[in-house]
Amino acid sequence: MSVRGYVAHEASAPLVPFEFSRRALGPRDVAFDILFSGICHSDIHQVREEWGPSTFPIVPGHEIIGVVTQVGPEVTKFKPGQRIGVGVFIDSCRTCDYCIRGLQQYCSAGMTPTYNGLDAQGEPLFGGYSNAFVIDQDYAVNVSEDCDLAGTAPLLCAGITLYSPLKHFGAGPGTRVGIIGLGGLGHMGVQFAHAMGAHVTVFTHSASKEADARALGADEVVVTHAANAVPQSGGNFDLIINASSADLDINPYLAALTIDGVFCFVGISGRPFSFDPTQLIGGRRHITGSAIGGMVELQEMMDFAAEHAIVSQVEVIEASAINDAYERTVASDVKYRFVIDASTF
Amino acid sequence: MSVRGYVAHEASAPLVPFEFSRRALGPRDVAFDILFSGICHSDIHQVREEWGPSTFPIVPGHEIIGVVTQVGPEVTKFKPGQRIGVGVFIDSCRTCDYCIRGLQQYCSAGMTPTYNGLDAQGEPLFGGYSNAFVIDQDYAVNVSEDCDLAGTAPLLCAGITLYSPLKHFGAGPGTRVGIIGLGGLGHMGVQFAHAMGAHVTVFTHSASKEADARALGADEVVVTHAANAVPQSGGNFDLIINASSADLDINPYLAALTIDGVFCFVGISGRPFSFDPTQLIGGRRHITGSAIGGMVELQEMMDFAAEHAIVSQVEVIEASAINDAYERTVASDVKYRFVIDASTF
Repeated sequence: MSVRGYVAHEASAPLVPFEFSRRALGPRDVAFDILFSGICHSDIHQVREEWGPSTFPIVPGHEIIGVVTQVGPEVTKFKPGQRIGVGVFIDSCRTCDYCIRGLQQYCSAGMTPTYNGLDAQGEPLFGGYSNAFVIDQDYAVNVSEDCDLAGTAPLLCAGITLYSPLKHFGAGPGTRVGIIGLGGLGHMGVQFAHAMGAHVTVFTHSASKEADARALGADEVVVTHAANAVPQSGGNFDLIINASSADLDINPYLAALTIDGVFCFVGISGRPFSFDPTQLIGGRRHITGSAIGGMVELQEMMDFAAEHAIVSQVEVIEASAINDAYERTVASDVKYRFVIDASTF
Repeated sequence: MSVRGYVAHEASAPLVPFEFSRRALGPRDVAFDILFSGICHSDIHQVREEWGPSTFPIVPGHEIIGVVTQVGPEVTKFKPGQRIGVGVFIDSCRTCDYCIRGLQQYCSAGMTPTYNGLDAQGEPLFGGYSNAFVIDQDYAVNVSEDCDLAGTAPLLCAGITLYSPLKHFGAGPGTRVGIIGLGGLGHMGVQFAHAMGAHVTVFTHSASKEADARALGADEVVVTHAANAVPQSGGNFDLIINASSADLDINPYLAALTIDGVFCFVGISGRPFSFDPTQLIGGRRHITGSAIGGMVELQEMMDFAAEHAIVSQVEVIEASAINDAYERTVASDVKYRFVIDASTF
């Protein structure tokens, strides 16, 4: 299947138009036309080799929404005309303990990434910055007909990245949840935590984001410029999720956790963090991290989002604007996610 | 009640003999003659004000075993002649969520320490380096008649400090547990983890401790001098407990955890620790800490230890040797705990 997309041929080059082939439809495969493809900051890190060597050429994109065009003879989960979503991985070993438990993101053999990797035949895997896709049905999710499809694309990475730790670590009625950073990740976390019934506090360095935070569901907004901002937040957090990429001093946040409370990294600065272990010992508090989610949880998140009308706030762009969008993403000049209209590839 | 003990009058002074009074027996109180009192490294830290200002005069000691001499009219849990144990705290608010859940060590109002604190009347609390004690029955545990009483004293602090996180974080058959450091804390952890049915690996910088570690129940011993010692340990640990007071690089241990694995601090160096959050994100791994245990768990631990004949390996000393024992404890020249014969006060 011949498709059009955008590619980076090397780390220093801008993305340019690209024609390439998708694999032929297998018996359990679903082919779909891409409608929207989100731009995740991790696309930029990988294109620019900021996380180590990448496999060029790269067609990025792992927040993909489309409409099914064709299904293999063994496909039961999708029919032509239905909406479909693909996220950060397109396969895994399926046999390890984690795959069996539905934690494919932690597959012992390593999940197969949607792009910047090789398939079983050693061919490069091309991502969602294109106009069509082929996927094994087990690694795609059903998408509601009723949702805002552009705003739904980022759920496949940014959405699940926040939903999974909120769910796993028990956000719900009667719990106090803190979200650090109101960006592509954080603005999803506020919505999910609020919809789950938690009392939500947003920590942001930018006072200008307070109105947005409250509109998204925050009960409290703490501007972190003041030295005592965290202690003055009221503390007693059951869960604080760090969705920022700043070099934080995490100790005031650890001190603001309740007994058995959890501080969870989903954002990172690229540098190590330091902590005082007596903060942990004094309350059996946890520092942890979480990576996206498994396939069962990904579907659950999509259904939850549709039910609660949760979408990412997006700026829809044409494919030709990808390079500009990269610059603006790096400069945090986006509220809160760029999504490419795939009809423009 | 007039008793004899050993006291530090100021931080720079050696401990000396001391006569003082215990409170009169209340209706729910138990009076007992102390038989053995363990020396915990934290006694030394507090006597020397290494953890901040202390309340002098200090009579240290929070690993106390005795025999009941007298009980108040409302006491139901103890009778004269029975063995009794007292640990790190002697009271708590009894009304906060944590006290109600049996987590008195995390009492919202702060537990009342066995020593280096004040009672409700503002009088200094004197610890276990003495020949008799008075305690509310709710904050003492029953001690088996059949156990080695000197070796049992350190269970009240060192024992519960390891038992609690092993239990809470699921050590048991089919799990892999690592214990870092084979000292007063670590040698209890090896025994408990082994008795719980876990596969136990001891990490020690001292090759000379291998035989001891195996005799205590270790399945594997990893000498940590070699740069790749931790990766070569086989990894896949469900739980690693840091029972050392060294400045470790914890990152290789985090990388050696399984998905959802836990790295738990019970020992600290007094300095901050640094970590790479991608180690946490890549496997939903946890860094946490744990402080002693609550009263229900303390009794459970004592019963478990008696059932499995678990005791601390101790060197019993006379009261006059306390100051020497402090020097040897600081120099790690003890296998593995000093216990004072309280008949020598």
